[in-house]
This record gives sequence, structure tokens and C-alpha cells, in this order.
Amino acid sequence: MTAQSCILIKGGKVVNEDFSVMADVYIEDGVISGVGTDLQVAAGTRVIDATHKLVLPGGIDSHTHMELSFMGTTTADDFQTGTQAAVAGGTTMILDFVIAQKGCSLLEAYERWRRTADPKVCCDYSLHMAVTWWDDTVKKEMETLVSEKGINSFKMFMAYKDLYMLQDLELYAVFSTCKEIGAIAQVHAENGDLIAEGAKRMLSLGITGPEGHEMCRPEEVEAEATQRAITIAHATNCPLYVVHVMSKSAAKVVANARRNGRLVFGEPIAAGLGTDGTHYWHENWAHAAGFVMGPPLRPDPSTPGYLMDLLANDDLSVTGTDNCTFSVCQKALGKDDFTKIPNGVNGVEDRMSVIWEKGVHSGKMDENRFVAVTSTNAAKIFNLYPRKGRIAKGSDADLVIWDPKASRVISAKTHHQAVDYNIFEGMLCHGVPVVTISRGKVVYENGKLFTKPGEGRYIPRKPFAEFVYKRINQREKVGTPSAVCREPYTGEIISIGLKQ
Amino acid sequence: MTAQSCILIKGGKVVNEDFSVMADVYIEDGVISGVGTDLQVAAGTRVIDATHKLVLPGGIDSHTHMELSFMGTTTADDFQTGTQAAVAGGTTMILDFVIAQKGCSLLEAYERWRRTADPKVCCDYSLHMAVTWWDDTVKKEMETLVSEKGINSFKMFMAYKDLYMLQDLELYAVFSTCKEIGAIAQVHAENGDLIAEGAKRMLSLGITGPEGHEMCRPEEVEAEATQRAITIAHATNCPLYVVHVMSKSAAKVVANARRNGRLVFGEPIAAGLGTDGTHYWHENWAHAAGFVMGPPLRPDPSTPGYLMDLLANDDLSVTGTDNCTFSVCQKALGKDDFTKIPNGVNGVEDRMSVIWEKGVHSGKMDENRFVAVTSTNAAKIFNLYPRKGRIAKGSDADLVIWDPKASRVISAKTHHQAVDYNIFEGMLCHGVPVVTISRGKVVYENGKLFTKPGEGRYIPRKPFAEFVYKRINQREKVGTPSAVCREPYTGEIISIGLKQ
Amino acid sequence: MTAQSCILIKGGKVVNEDFSVMADVYIEDGVISGVGTDLQVAAGTRVIDATHKLVLPGGIDSHTHMELSFMGTTTADDFQTGTQAAVAGGTTMILDFVIAQKGCSLLEAYERWRRTADPKVCCDYSLHMAVTWWDDTVKKEMETLVSEKGINSFKMFMAYKDLYMLQDLELYAVFSTCKEIGAIAQVHAENGDLIAEGAKRMLSLGITGPEGHEMCRPEEVEAEATQRAITIAHATNCPLYVVHVMSKSAAKVVANARRNGRLVFGEPIAAGLGTDGTHYWHENWAHAAGFVMGPPLRPDPSTPGYLMDLLANDDLSVTGTDNCTFSVCQKALGKDDFTKIPNGVNGVEDRMSVIWEKGVHSGKMDENRFVAVTSTNAAKIFNLYPRKGRIAKGSDADLVIWDPKASRVISAKTHHQAVDYNIFEGMLCHGVPVVTISRGKVVYENGKLFTKPGEGRYIPRKPFAEFVYKRINQREKVGTPSAVCREPYTGEIISIGLKQ
Amino acid sequence: MTAQSCILIKGGKVVNEDFSVMADVYIEDGVISGVGTDLQVAAGTRVIDATHKLVLPGGIDSHTHMELSFMGTTTADDFQTGTQAAVAGGTTMILDFVIAQKGCSLLEAYERWRRTADPKVCCDYSLHMAVTWWDDTVKKEMETLVSEKGINSFKMFMAYKDLYMLQDLELYAVFSTCKEIGAIAQVHAENGDLIAEGAKRMLSLGITGPEGHEMCRPEEVEAEATQRAITIAHATNCPLYVVHVMSKSAAKVVANARRNGRLVFGEPIAAGLGTDGTHYWHENWAHAAGFVMGPPLRPDPSTPGYLMDLLANDDLSVTGTDNCTFSVCQKALGKDDFTKIPNGVNGVEDRMSVIWEKGVHSGKMDENRFVAVTSTNAAKIFNLYPRKGRIAKGSDADLVIWDPKASRVISAKTHHQAVDYNIFEGMLCHGVPVVTISRGKVVYENGKLFTKPGEGRYIPRKPFAEFVYKRINQREKVGTPSAVCREPYTGEIISIGLKQ
Repeated sequence: MTAQSCILIKGGKVVNEDFSVMADVYIEDGVISGVGTDLQVAAGTRVIDATHKLVLPGGIDSHTHMELSFMGTTTADDFQTGTQAAVAGGTTMILDFVIAQKGCSLLEAYERWRRTADPKVCCDYSLHMAVTWWDDTVKKEMETLVSEKGINSFKMFMAYKDLYMLQDLELYAVFSTCKEIGAIAQVHAENGDLIAEGAKRMLSLGITGPEGHEMCRPEEVEAEATQRAITIAHATNCPLYVVHVMSKSAAKVVANARRNGRLVFGEPIAAGLGTDGTHYWHENWAHAAGFVMGPPLRPDPSTPGYLMDLLANDDLSVTGTDNCTFSVCQKALGKDDFTKIPNGVNGVEDRMSVIWEKGVHSGKMDENRFVAVTSTNAAKIFNLYPRKGRIAKGSDADLVIWDPKASRVISAKTHHQAVDYNIFEGMLCHGVPVVTISRGKVVYENGKLFTKPGEGRYIPRKPFAEFVYKRINQREKVGTPSAVCREPYTGEIISIGLKQ
Repeated sequence: MTAQSCILIKGGKVVNEDFSVMADVYIEDGVISGVGTDLQVAAGTRVIDATHKLVLPGGIDSHTHMELSFMGTTTADDFQTGTQAAVAGGTTMILDFVIAQKGCSLLEAYERWRRTADPKVCCDYSLHMAVTWWDDTVKKEMETLVSEKGINSFKMFMAYKDLYMLQDLELYAVFSTCKEIGAIAQVHAENGDLIAEGAKRMLSLGITGPEGHEMCRPEEVEAEATQRAITIAHATNCPLYVVHVMSKSAAKVVANARRNGRLVFGEPIAAGLGTDGTHYWHENWAHAAGFVMGPPLRPDPSTPGYLMDLLANDDLSVTGTDNCTFSVCQKALGKDDFTKIPNGVNGVEDRMSVIWEKGVHSGKMDENRFVAVTSTNAAKIFNLYPRKGRIAKGSDADLVIWDPKASRVISAKTHHQAVDYNIFEGMLCHGVPVVTISRGKVVYENGKLFTKPGEGRYIPRKPFAEFVYKRINQREKVGTPSAVCREPYTGEIISIGLKQ
Repeated sequence: MTAQSCILIKGGKVVNEDFSVMADVYIEDGVISGVGTDLQVAAGTRVIDATHKLVLPGGIDSHTHMELSFMGTTTADDFQTGTQAAVAGGTTMILDFVIAQKGCSLLEAYERWRRTADPKVCCDYSLHMAVTWWDDTVKKEMETLVSEKGINSFKMFMAYKDLYMLQDLELYAVFSTCKEIGAIAQVHAENGDLIAEGAKRMLSLGITGPEGHEMCRPEEVEAEATQRAITIAHATNCPLYVVHVMSKSAAKVVANARRNGRLVFGEPIAAGLGTDGTHYWHENWAHAAGFVMGPPLRPDPSTPGYLMDLLANDDLSVTGTDNCTFSVCQKALGKDDFTKIPNGVNGVEDRMSVIWEKGVHSGKMDENRFVAVTSTNAAKIFNLYPRKGRIAKGSDADLVIWDPKASRVISAKTHHQAVDYNIFEGMLCHGVPVVTISRGKVVYENGKLFTKPGEGRYIPRKPFAEFVYKRINQREKVGTPSAVCREPYTGEIISIGLKQ
Repeated sequence: MTAQSCILIKGGKVVNEDFSVMADVYIEDGVISGVGTDLQVAAGTRVIDATHKLVLPGGIDSHTHMELSFMGTTTADDFQTGTQAAVAGGTTMILDFVIAQKGCSLLEAYERWRRTADPKVCCDYSLHMAVTWWDDTVKKEMETLVSEKGINSFKMFMAYKDLYMLQDLELYAVFSTCKEIGAIAQVHAENGDLIAEGAKRMLSLGITGPEGHEMCRPEEVEAEATQRAITIAHATNCPLYVVHVMSKSAAKVVANARRNGRLVFGEPIAAGLGTDGTHYWHENWAHAAGFVMGPPLRPDPSTPGYLMDLLANDDLSVTGTDNCTFSVCQKALGKDDFTKIPNGVNGVEDRMSVIWEKGVHSGKMDENRFVAVTSTNAAKIFNLYPRKGRIAKGSDADLVIWDPKASRVISAKTHHQAVDYNIFEGMLCHGVPVVTISRGKVVYENGKLFTKPGEGRYIPRKPFAEFVYKRINQREKVGTPSAVCREPYTGEIISIGLKQ
């Protein structure tokens, strides 16, 4: 180790989930080696002044799709531009999804994703694995992925019928498997049958524009599936994580389940917290199409504030983005049929700013809860904590210096993503990342990127995350049903026989 | 017409859904020909003194299974003993279910039911039709049943996997058909997949007794299916009727949906209003098995009171019994395996008394609401009103003289059903039927039956019941979605092609 | 009786709360003497053709303030113009409020109201009595009003501090008295202390316009008081009627209480069902001020639809208007201080149309529920049923012929009220009253009034309305608490004495 | 500092709110000086083996009344026995309440409490201040208490009419003051008026036993006051802390308010989490009377589990005990009149065990959430964190070594409290404190106390706790209402004048 790799962040307010404190942070060789005052540092240590700034754990985006081929085209952002945008926004880790086609090997898909991502990523990343079909070989691959490949989360689709969708019984089997191997089950919760029928109906009524996308899958279709997934998960004593909670009614289902003791986590995303589905009715087709994602944003304009209230209150727990960007010319594949518009929106760069603006600046949450929902909780649930998600001695040096007094306006003109529009265009955000440090190196500073593709690392994760499984295991132990002790029945028994 | 067929009920308080009034009721030839004072009557008219008594519309039991062959045996009560018990309890009409096996003709099943019931029934009856499978021939038969056979209600099972259960898409199709032909869709709402898995699990844990029946299908399995059915029904703008709402959580789902404007009706049953599922843990096997039905009674002892509160408040609307009786020696088919215990309990005789006791005597509802939930609402929903369900000039002379001051104790020793036990054994009930009149004839009086098998009639029902369909039709008219008017998109479009 | 006073309404569809039927209605001498077909009528009977029209019970406006002196001025509409407007809109009865100042005799106020109203009213009316202070003389006057003056409803203010507001203990006392004498307690439910503080705060922040009126009394101030009133009423086993339920949160409190078995009725009003509180932020002061009433309309634009859903579902029960009109030059008393804007809006004329448009035309309720919420339920609760609120032999001939196919646009230019603006200005309403009949006389026909001041009558009401008190009395009987039987405690007892 | 004051806890699992880690804890001179492995320790350091044990932050009991004179007698436990019991149970800090009589100086009461407690306390303590009356001198004393005496929490009673109860307007004033001076407002939330009336009614019905105590103040009396307090607090933008949340309905009010973004904390207590109000109906008077406290325990036996679910889910946040013990001979003051039974139960010793048993052993929460609700959250809310509530370098050495495998049975025979019975008598608890360390000294070990009266310290607390006030301040900044800009009204204005 040489002093070149040492950084002292001086004079800032270190913000962790539990409290904030004025302290310096000393980084050596990619790891935080001290937090406090009067720290001894190596000669040649670079000193970064953080006076009047906050020093936060780098953001963890729990939900991205970089370089995904979907609906006939491939996302505008690959792992390079995607992670560059991430660090420009204060996010230092992404969790992307490996998605195998039905019938295809999960392990092979995993390896393909690794080959794609490893040379390009500019910050650390990890992978969730989608389970899009079911038989015993899938079960075995799940076990291998957990034991050898660092996967501890599996996502199942209740929508995208025929493509990715699983039936209830398959969900039951996957959830049961997750529980055995210590993984967390994730669901995309929408009723795929109803969406398919709804889409047919809208098209038959001559509704081909982006508004049809929302109308064919109104929020009760999301709430229903959320309720169903929670019920199945509870039947298997498996922890559940609902990705992209997009509506008030689905969020209420999650919140009520938590009150009843269900082990379920809800993930709202930047899009849902920062904007709404009235855009689908926009008179400009390209504008409207830009917001198409599944589940859709909701036309009820009180949705974002409601989701933020629940996020502030820990009824919802984690934030991702479902970043899955398609440029306008890609969205145009569906210009005459909304079912052909590639689904997805941006978010990986702007998530932290949007949540600060709508959550912290509004007074709904404080800076500590901001850290929890943008970083710490993801680290805990996915078993990365306290290596990620906390500024503490021994943790990875992934952090961001945040200026809570500064502000910026989001725009596609200035963003670092490859996609050519931005769903938050024009939003004024208080709270600006000024320096981002990934693995102990400054990768973004004062508006400039200093990233090198491939410098990020794949972070394997262990199963049985304590944050989740301590309760699961204890419930298993004390909650197993038992039979009533009775004298056997010794009376008369009728013979079988139906009267017809 | 001769005076033999004339009856004057004198001096009673006539109770309809909307109010009560001191009035005489004059019956001629099976029909009420006058309600009031100083009525002119034919010479020779029989006068029945109803002083200090109430005169109520005869009860309508919206849910019975007489003479049903199920799980290897046939119910103890057939259409004769079943309807005799009914009139002994103040009920003058039952709605039974025709159930065809998967793949079999609905029309044939209908005819078989008619052949079975017509010669035996001692009061009027009508038939719901179960839809247990789906293809175009079923659709056609549904249309025929509505147009020619007087059926306007179809019931679908979300449970009884492989036997009767439909998939979500099939429900969507049946609901859509119901809406087209003006019928009401009914569901048995339990998640059949979860029950099947739950049952396997209980047996694998060595739980073979009746308690396993409830544990393998806890109430959230019912609530989930209820939510799902409501969501699907709403997607098709089809009115929905949830049979046997058995749990607080399922009832809450119904009540919340109604608050949100959904056209859904919930039917609690006598068993669920009068007793609870703690009996499954009874140390005597036969006792415990006697309460086995699906969905099960719930172990939470506050359930019956909660259901009654919602019934009083019109969050739930109608009451049936799911009367489906098996004697102890029949129940004994499942002595070593709860999945083999024939499902079903009694109720057709005691429903009126149980609801009076728990609903009216307790002060939760008044006598008028009692009439609504035991008779009028069923008549309205199933399009029999005001022929049935009201004491008014021109209505059928189905009525009961009720002594609100008298009381009785329910017991298998004294009941009129063929089954050899009674789930309400020992319950003290205030409110006793003293005279029952069916089709203008006294069929029960002072503890004695005067029924003749076959004197009841099959009552055909027309579709598009106004009580239900006025709203459905108006919603269809004003609620059809419409497209946004936009300039066509004229920009660049990417070529299809995935990067792999 | 001469044929001059006979009317036959021919060919219409008679709509009652429970069902609709094609039938003629024959009116003799102010009373309905027949409903049916082929009715025998007197020679010279006037025949009114109602083909393709509905014949509805005349509307009952449960809540008006005609000719009220309030906040320094007197309402624009007196009992003459007010009741003329009522019949022009299809309403044939109003319930107005007698309000005595603190310390003044209720009986004297009652007599004053009668003297004012009797010579002017153009349709029947009845009176609620406000209780604005409390001591034993008030209690005695309440008893007299019930036994001798036909009053069975008393309204208490939880707002209007120092002017009308009662403290909780006084509410307890009045509710207890109501219960003893068989009256229904009514409350204006807002927390008067919080309003007073809020108003001070808004003024201190320089907020003097109509928006301050809402901001000083946000909806939780209404919901809180509603909850409190229900709690106090339940403690006394007194039925409660919440006048002008204006917000989603207050409505939810009422609905939840009903689910829990509380005997409470909620009354939304035309203003709250037809428009919202965004108007308070209108840039034109006079426009904004025109909507000022207490409790205020709510800025959440989803409020009217929500209230209508609950009204359709019987979570709310009755509709009034709180018609209390002040012209712009009167509203202008508060031009520099919103606390001085006289509170009140119009509604008595447009209530029926607004509810038809937003409730029936929208598909939320059918014509029968429309009758229930505009007429029948008020008649039941206030003990006028079936004399009022039903088209049946023997009922008062108060009815309206309604054209469901016609439409009209509401406007101050064409309305019959004396006030010079209309809060529903410009609203297109399907459903138009074409003929109104009061006490058997045509008082409005094809846009023309045929009223005579003083032809309406004061309708006294009896206490212990069955619709309300059957349950109250039964609960009293079976619900009285009882003590545990125990052996007396015989152990040691410490001497009193505090350590300081 | 000498090695005598050094302790090394070796081999345990250190449990903080956010995660658990195998680590040693080194204590020097009352403070934690290191957490980790291979710590360097002074010669002579005492080593305590914690293998297979957990090392937890010492419990903080947020709610006690030691040595309180109340209802004519003084609690059995004084500050000595009370704090001895606390440390025996794993609690190392209590927050007691100073209560001045109406009209008396708060400062004087504070000084009296300090004089009483300081010489006796065996662990650290701090003080909340009750505000039982209101005028400007009270306001000034509140300011002094905050600025000079280390008080940052004030409790107001909505019950105990005439004795301690404040009116709504007084609450508004105190809450406003709290907000200005950076304190947290606490309320005892019950409607005192209704309790007073209810008590009179019960006595008039001859109900004099302990069951009357609950029946005169059913849970809706608690829920109503909770709703009211939250509404008033929100109107003043003051943070609110509801002490002793005892019922499902009150807890639901708190939870719903949090979902709506209200800054409110709910405190269930050991009694409410561990037992229920069915005991009031116990046939033995002394047994029943032993559970009398206000608000009472609830007869609904599902209450404790519900409260624990909400505590697990952070709908409720902190746990205290309301420890306020009176021996049977003291309770006997109310042997003929439940209103004279001194209110209060034990809990300070058993809180940790009860919550472990019902919360952690049951699988509802994990060990980290246990730390949050028994210690950390209290420290955060009352501004003691991270000095208290966390095991970290620099924190006070208040901790407990906890054996999660051991179990014990609670009994008055073995407890350390002075009171002669125990409401948890006979409860089997998994999870046992084996060593308690207060201020760096072992005060309890293997069943033996090593306390010295007066060795605890009064811990002053600063106002504007960041955990609470960051949000309050931001809301103040961005949430202040503003006026609509309008042209002035220039039209006609009526002259004032009422028509009578």
C-alpha cells in the first residue's frame, strides 16, 4: 500500500443510518481505516475538504437492468455508461438481474452476465437471478448459484405471461427452495393473465397509445398479485421482497402485511417516488412512451407522496430504479401498439437526488433515514452489511460527499446516461453529490468522471442473511404445527358409494 | 278458488325490510292478496291469530346442497328432509347448487337435479349452476340455462383442485360470459393450490385430525382468493357474489371492495355466524369432524361477532347455510386423514334462529334488517323480488309467524334434519318460528310439519336482475375507456435486433 | 274532496328505495290513494303523463338554514325563496335548524322559527333544534320540545367556539338526555379549539383570503371531532348523526365506526358531493369566498368521488345541503379577513340533480339507492317514514316526476334561489325534475313555479324512531354491564399517607 | 485510571441495533474503549467470559414511577429497590417522571425528585417532567428546565380529571412551547371526562370491583384521546410520544398516523406486551386488583401479540414499564371502590425478559430489533444516543451479558422488587441476563446484586434531539403556509345587520 491510495475526507458530517457525527474519514487501499477526529494518516495522503458537506455511504441501487436485451432491442445503457451514471449520481453499487429464457440454464446465463459486466463496470456490482421456469434442474442450479456463485436472491415474474411468468404452484416451489437454501425471494407482482386480457381489450377498443399500457393493468392488478405473493411466501415461511412497488394500493398491501408480522420488504423506485403516470396521457407520443414501464406509473398524482411517506416510515424499505433505458427510437417500436413499446425508464443516476428532494428536503425523512433507504437496508437484506451500507472502520470505501445546500436541475442534456431523454427532466433537486469514491478511489468529482471500465468488482453474497433469516429460522423452530392428541374414532363407518 | 285456500293472519306486526306495521295479512290461493286492517275476507277463511307475534317473509336460504354426492358419499339430507327442516325453521325457499363433473354437460346435470328435487321438495326452490370446467360448449350451455332454464347465477370454485377448480383465465372467461348474459358470478374463494400443498404438509407432519383441515387452509388463503376474484370480476365489469365468507380477513376484503365501489356481495352462513373453528381442536374426533367444511370455521373466537357486525352494516348482504350434511358414520371416512372427511355442516333449519339470536337479540340489527339478510336481499340479488322476500299484495304467500319472546334450545334430538348431530347443539335461541306458510299453505305449526313432498315448485329466475345490473349497465355505458388523440409519431425507429 | 284535488300520474316508472315498477299513481286530497295499474279515478281527475319518466318520492333536504341571521347578516334565501328553489329542484321537504344563542330559551327560539317559517313555506318542513349551551333548564326544554313540539333531533356544535360550541362533558350530558327522550343527537364535528388557534396563526402569517379558511381547519380537525363525538355517543348508547361530512378522513371514521357496530349516520351534502375545495385558491376573491362554509370543502379533488362511493355503499346514509346562502356583497364582509366571511353555500335546489349526475349517471348507485339517500333514509331516521320517503298508498303525495334522459346546466342565471351565484355554475346534469307535487298539488311544472307561501306545513315528529331506537333499546336491555361475584377482600389494608 | 476499573468481555456476540458481530468489549473507567478482536488491555483487567452469550446495550426503561406518592400512598419500590430490580433484569437506565401538583412549581418538584433519587439510584437515570397545569410561569419553568436542568421531555395527562388533566387548549399551548424549546411532548392518552362519567356509572350499577376499572374506560376512550393528541401535535408541528399504548385500537391510531407522516412515537409497556386484562375478572379480588393501572390492560387476549407485531414493525418504537408498584395492602385501599385502588404495576425488572420471550423467542423480532426497542430507540428519541443505547467505542459502559439459551420463571418469590406480587407470576422466559454492567462496574452477576445506592448518575439531556428535530425543523422551513396573491375585492359590501 502506498500513500497514493490514501484519502482523508476532512471536516464533513458522517451520516450513517443510526446517527450523524462530525468526523473525518480515512481511507486506505479501498477500505475505511478510520472514522473520527485527529486520525493519523500516511504521508502523501490526499485530503478532501468536506466542510459543510455530508459524507454518506455510497448509494446501492437494488434494481437495474444494464445492457438487457428485451422486447426486440437492447437497453441504451450498458454496464459502462450505466455505472458511470451511477457514480455521477452518488451510487457506488448496483444489483442487476440475470434473466434466462424459459428452458435455459440459469448458470449459463449467470456466466454470460458476468462476462458482459466484468470488463465494463465502473463500480462494484452484484447479481440477482431470475427464475423464469421450473423443474428439478432449476432447483439444482439455484443451489449451485447460492453455494458457488454468490447469489442469494431470486426474482420471479407474476407478469409477462408466456415469456417469464410463473404459475402459483411454481412460485410455491421456488419460494420453498429459497427458504431451504437461505435466499430471499423477489417478485414482480402483477397479474399476468389480467394484463394479457386487458391489453387485448384496449387494442380492440382502438386504444394503441401509451395510456393503454396503464389502462390494461390498473393498480388493483398489482395489488392483487402482491397480496397473492405474500400469501404464498407466508405459506412457505420464505422471506419476500416485492420489487418496484408502484401504487398506493400495492404499497398498502405490503404495509398491512408487515403489521401482521409478514417478512416482506417493499422496494419503491426513483420513478415512482419522483413522477407519476399522468404522463401516459401526454399529447406527445414520444413523451408519453418514455414513461412506459411495468408495472406502470400511476395516474393518481398523490401516489409519489404516499410511497415516500411509507418509505419514511419503514413500511417500505429499500429503493432501486428498475433502470432499463431505451431511447426514443427504440420506444418507437411500439408507435402503433403500446404492447410493443420496450418497457423501462432511467433512474440510476438520479435516484439519490430525487429521494433527497422528495424525501429529505420535504421533511418526510431525515438524512439518516435517507442513508437507510438508499444504501443500508439494501446491504442488510442482501447480506452485504456492514461491508457496504455503512461508514465504519473496515467497511469498503464506497462513499459520496453530498452538498445538502447545493441544487441542480435534472436534464437529459447534462446527464451521464446513454439514453436520450430523462423522465425527471426539469426537476429541481436540492442535494447534490460532489465527490463519489468507489473502492477507495475518486471516480467522480465536481462534475467530472474518473472511472475506468472494469475497476468495479462482482461482489458475491452469502445466503441466510441474518437481517432476514434470524426470524425465519426462529419461526421455523417455534412455529411448526402440531397435532391434537385424541383417542382414535371407533364408531361406525359408512361404505363409500354415491347416489346418482 | 275456494275459501279452503284462504288464510287471514290477524293481529300481528308485519315486518318488511323497510319497516314494520301492525297489519293483517290475507292470503288467497297461494298469493298475498291484502295487507292492512279491516280486510275483507272470504267466508270460511282460516284465521290465524298472530297477536304479539311478528309476520315475516319466509326465509330464503341462498346456499344449500341437498342430496349431494360428494367425497364418496351422499348427504344425509335429501330434498325432502332438507326442505322439511327448512320450513320447520321458518325458511320457505332454498337455492341449491347443480354441480356437474369436469367435462360433463351442465344441462344434463340441471335436468338430473330437477328430476331429483321436483318430486321431493316441500317448499319452493331454485338452482344455481356450478361451472367446473370451461370451453365453448360450456359457454353455450350457460346461455341456454339462462334463456330457457331460469338460471341466473353461476358458481365457480377456486378450490377443490383437479376436481372443480378453475384457473384465473377460466374465471375471466366465465365472468365475462356472466356479464354478457346478465347472470351473477359466484365464487368459492380459497386458493386451491395452497390448500393442496398445505394438506400435504400437514399430513407429512403427522397431523391427520380435523385440526389439520383448518391449518392447511388458514384464513389468508381465503382472503387472498377473495381479493383475486374481486379483481378479476372488476376487470370484466361482472357482479360478484362470494359464497360462504368465513373469516374476518375475507370479510374485510369484501367490505373494502364495496367501499371502493365494487359490485360484490358477501354471504356469511349460519355456521360462521353461530359458532367457530375452535371445535376442530376438540378432543373428541367425531365432535371435531362434525364441523369440517370448506372454507373452515375459524379458530379466532371473535369471528362470528365480526361477521355479524358487517352483516348488520350491509358490508355483507345475504345469509345462506351451505347446508351439506353428513352423519358421523360418513364423516368417519376421514378418521385417519382429514382430507377424506366429507365437507359440510347443517344449518338450513337453524339459520333463522341463529341469526335472530346473534343478530337481533344482541342488538346488532333490528327485525327489519333481519328480514333483509335472511330473505329480501337474496330475493333482490337473484331476481325474485318482490315476488319473494316481501310481504305485500301480489307477493307469494311464503311467510312465517315469529315469536320474538319465545326461546328454544337447538338439539339434534329435536331437529328435523336427517343428519345425526347439530353444530349448534345446546344453543339457546330467542325467537322461534311458530307457523310457516309456504305457497299459501300452513306447512309447519306449533312444532308439527304439514308438508307434502313435491308441493314446492322450481322457481325460474330471469337474467339482468335490476338490483345488480342497473349499475353494471350504466358503468358499461359511461365507463368504457377511450384513447388519447395524438399526432402520429414520425421520428426515427430502431431496427429490431438483440445484442447477446 | 273534489276531483280538483285528484291527480293521476300515468305511465311512469315508480321508484322506491327497494325496487322500481311500472305503475300509475293516484292522488286524492294530498295523499297517495293508489299505486298500480287500472286504478279507478274520480271524474275530473287531472292526468299527468309520465311515460319514459320516473316517479320518485319528493326529496327531503335534511339540512337547511333559511333566513338565518349569522355572522352579522341574514341569508339571501328566506323560507319562501328557499322552498320555492327546493320544489323547483324536486325537493318537497326541508329540515331546518332552530338555533338559540347561548343562554337563551330553546322554546322561544322554536316559536320564533315557526312564526318566521309558517307563513312562507311552499312545501312541508320540520325543525331540528340546536343545543348551544347546557343546564337543567335546557334539559327540561328538550323534554318539552320532544313531547309537545314535534322535535326529535338535536344538534350540537363542536366548533364555533364561544358562540355555539359545547365542551365534551356537555356533549355527554346532551347525548344522555337525547337517549332518554328518544331523540337523535346531531353534531357539527370540528375541533373548535384547533380552528380558533389555526385562524389566529393564518392571520398572523398574513393569510387573510378564503384559502386561510381551509388551512386553519384541515380535514384532520374534522376527523378528530368525528371520532370524539362517536366515542362519546357510544358511551351513552345514544344514536348519532354527523351533519355535513366533508372529508375523506371524517367519512372513513364514520364508516369504520359503523363496521364496529356503532349507531352512527353520516350526512354528506350536495356541495361536498359535487365540488371541492380547490376553489378556495381561486385567484378571484369573490369566486373563492363563495365556497366558504364550515367544515370547508377539501382541496383533495378525489374527495367528492370518495364520499359518493361511501354514500352508494351505505357507509354514509343521507344527503342534505347545509343550504345557507349569502350573496357576494354579504361574503364581502370578510374581504380582508376570512374569519369574517359569512359561512354557507347554496344547494337546496340542485341537490337532487348533483347526486343524480355524480351518483346515478356515473354508475355508482342506481335509481333506488338515489331515492334512499335523497329521501327515504332521512324519513326513516327522523321518524317520518312511510308518510314521507315512499310512494305507497297512504303516504303524503310529495313526489317528483324525473326525466332521466334530459339534462340541464346549472347556473345562477336560471336558478330559483335568491343568492346571486351558484357553486355548481356550469355543471352539466343528466336527470331533470319536470313536475314536482307537494301535498298533492303541482308546485312546479316545466320550469314554472305554482307555489303559494304558507301552503307547506310544519311536520311534527315523534321520538323513539323505530329505525334507530329498536337497536338502542335492545342494546340497553342486553348490554348493561354487570359485576363479578367475589368473596370480599379480608386482608391487610395500609393506612393512607403519602411520603413527600 | 487503574486496571481495577478495566473489564474485558470476551468471546461474546455484540448485538447492536443494526447488526451483531463476534467481538470483545473492553471497558475502561466507565466507558467502552474498544470493540473488536485482539484488543490490547491493561494488566489486571478483569476478563468476563461471554462465550455463547450475547452482549447487549443495557436496557433503558423509558417510563417508571419510583417512590411516587399517588392516590394516598407511596409506591412500594423506591429509587433504590427500583434500580436494583432494574439492573437485575438487564436494565441500566430509567427515565422517571417528576410530577408537580396543579399550581405548584415544576422546578421545585424537579429539585425534590433529584434530592430523593440521587442518593439512592444504583444505575443512571434521567427525568421527564409532567405539566399538570398551565400559565406563563409554567412556560418559563419549562424553558429553564430545558436550558439548565437537562429535561427535554414533558408529559401531559389527558386523564386524571381535576388532578392532572389538561384541556385541549392547554395541550395546544404546551405542545407549542415544546416545539419552540426543542422538547418532545408526551401524553397519557385517555379521555378523562369519559372516564369520570364511566366510573360514576359503574359505581351506580353496583360494580365496585377491579373489572369496573376497565369497563369505565374501554379502549375506544384511549384511542379517541390518542387521535386527538396526534391532531393537536400536528397542528403545532410538535413531536409526540404516546406513553403506555395499551390497546389495539390506540396502537392502530399511532401506526396509521405514522403512515401519514406524523411524527409520533408509541410506547407499549411490559405489562401490555406480556399479559392482558382478563385478570380484572379474576375471582380473587387481590389478584384482580394487582393488575389495575391506567390505561388498563385490555380484556381482548389478542392484544399483547398485536402490540408486539407493531413493535416489531416499528409502528411502535420504544418500551417502558410504567413501573409503579403498590403492594396488596396498598391496593386494598380500593377494596370497596375500584376508583380508590392505587394504579400501577411492576415491570422494571422483567421488561427485558418478557420482550425477549414474546418478541424474540416467538420469532416476531430478532435480537437487533430487541436492542432497538429496549434501549437504542429510547436513547435516540431522548437524545442520549450514542452515549447510551449502543455498544461502541466512546459509549457509556452500560451493558448486559444475555444468555439466550437459558430460561427462568418469573415470580414474586425471587424478584428483586419490593412489591409483594408480580403480574407475570409463573411466566417462563427464555433469555436471561447473567451479568449487568452499569457505568463500567459489574452490578449484577449470576443472581447477585453488587449495587451501591447513589452510584448511578442523573443524566441531563439536551433539547432538539436530532432523531426527532431534523424533520421538525425542515418541515417548519418548507411547510409554512402561504397566501394566494389576488387583486383586492372592490365590489359592493353589505352593511352589518341581522334580521331577527
